Amino acid sequence: MTHELSILDAHPLGSGPIDRSKLVECIQSCFDCAQTCAGCADVCLSEEAAAELTKCIHATLDCFDICAATGKILSRNGSINGDITRAVLQACRTACKTCAEECGPQGFTRRHCAVCAGACRRCEQTCNTLLASLAQ
Amino acid sequence: MTHELSILDAHPLGSGPIDRSKLVECIQSCFDCAQTCAGCADVCLSEEAAAELTKCIHATLDCFDICAATGKILSRNGSINGDITRAVLQACRTACKTCAEECGPQGFTRRHCAVCAGACRRCEQTCNTLLASLAQ
Amino acid sequence: MTHELSILDAHPLGSGPIDRSKLVECIQSCFDCAQTCAGCADVCLSEEAAAELTKCIHATLDCFDICAATGKILSRNGSINGDITRAVLQACRTACKTCAEECGPQGFTRRHCAVCAGACRRCEQTCNTLLASLAQ
Amino acid sequence: MTHELSILDAHPLGSGPIDRSKLVECIQSCFDCAQTCAGCADVCLSEEAAAELTKCIHATLDCFDICAATGKILSRNGSINGDITRAVLQACRTACKTCAEECGPQGFTRRHCAVCAGACRRCEQTCNTLLASLAQ
Repeated sequence: MTHELSILDAHPLGSGPIDRSKLVECIQSCFDCAQTCAGCADVCLSEEAAAELTKCIHATLDCFDICAATGKILSRNGSINGDITRAVLQACRTACKTCAEECGPQGFTRRHCAVCAGACRRCEQTCNTLLASLAQ
Repeated sequence: MTHELSILDAHPLGSGPIDRSKLVECIQSCFDCAQTCAGCADVCLSEEAAAELTKCIHATLDCFDICAATGKILSRNGSINGDITRAVLQACRTACKTCAEECGPQGFTRRHCAVCAGACRRCEQTCNTLLASLAQ
Repeated sequence: MTHELSILDAHPLGSGPIDRSKLVECIQSCFDCAQTCAGCADVCLSEEAAAELTKCIHATLDCFDICAATGKILSRNGSINGDITRAVLQACRTACKTCAEECGPQGFTRRHCAVCAGACRRCEQTCNTLLASLAQ
Repeated sequence: MTHELSILDAHPLGSGPIDRSKLVECIQSCFDCAQTCAGCADVCLSEEAAAELTKCIHATLDCFDICAATGKILSRNGSINGDITRAVLQACRTACKTCAEECGPQGFTRRHCAVCAGACRRCEQTCNTLLASLAQ
């Protein structure tokens, strides 16, 4: 995402106490996970077995919302408010973890769920990494 | 919001372990707070002193995103996933608290900030109440 | 929504060429419709017949997204940009109309779909009214 | 965005009458534009001249909301509803065009605005291309 990097480079305040490369990675994985969750929910809904996948669909819908909000809040680099950033990152990693746990087992027979679980795990990890760097 | 109540009443699963009236109150205060934050950010941006209000504007933009995501996730009543619900409620009350602290002092001279701080405080409180009922 | 009115009353620019009461009504019906759609999608997903309701669920998910974006953009009263406002209102009324057409027939046997179709029709109408007042 | 492609490849219904590569390109440019707008609004807000940039900030905030909603609706590939898809793509290209026109002139002295105008122009174009392919 060249744009995101360019935008951050152009920021007059810099990213303050935040590690810039970890921030960019986290923003990207949030939007990537959101997109994948939206797609996964849609594919699950289109399956004949949709009724069996209810918990999985609910988790991806929730995960989408939290990831999109987190990606957006983190994109407001200059606004980094310690408390809000930390709180939303914690919510995001919980949603990603839960969604990966719901989608993962479906992934043995459904490729889209395997893809989604992978995106969730990666997003969970980048949230954790950014949280750890904030705590220092 | 008659609609929201009707939708919940019509739910085949009920709201499970969640206290229905606390849930409805929290959903309403989340959307109400989101709406108020969007309006407050806009009024602040339109003031000549916009540059002085940067922290306040940032907080309202962040608070909008979290409140809207929380209101939406809670509206998916059947999907109540304990972990995700708790995580997003915690993030929401933190954002509301922070936003109220930013807007509150501006409220002495700016009515829209006073209105916004009030909506944030109410939303923070309903999140806390719902969280407490979930913990039982 | 006392808050929304207070925020608009406090706006230094007023709502410009826009009819204030029509604007407030439209903002409220957008957020109300969004909330109702989120609830309806959730109830449909929780039914055993979820697979038969796929088109209905998709419409409510789409309608939610457009209504929420429209409500938010309209809440930025000071920013009223004629072209963007018009474009998003047109998209919103189309989504509401489509969603009402999907949910309406289900409403004979599903109360939540009847509630949702009603909220969509009201939102479609307030979008039309606001659009007509903008065109003058 | 390998994920998005994988999700679409895994879709049981395919993308129906929609050109898959144009769809993927449009989804990506919507999320990319949303992200860039969020960043641009934040940088503008952090500048001392924030009050002069009000129109630009408003346009980027609006453009973010529409692009994010459009990217999400398009990601629900199986749900492609002709009317809603067309309506939201039309709103998106209008918002991108307007935002590019606001940010473009600032781009001579502000690199972030130049980056943002570029992302908006690309998104406007992919919306147009997808709309044209839908009309066939």
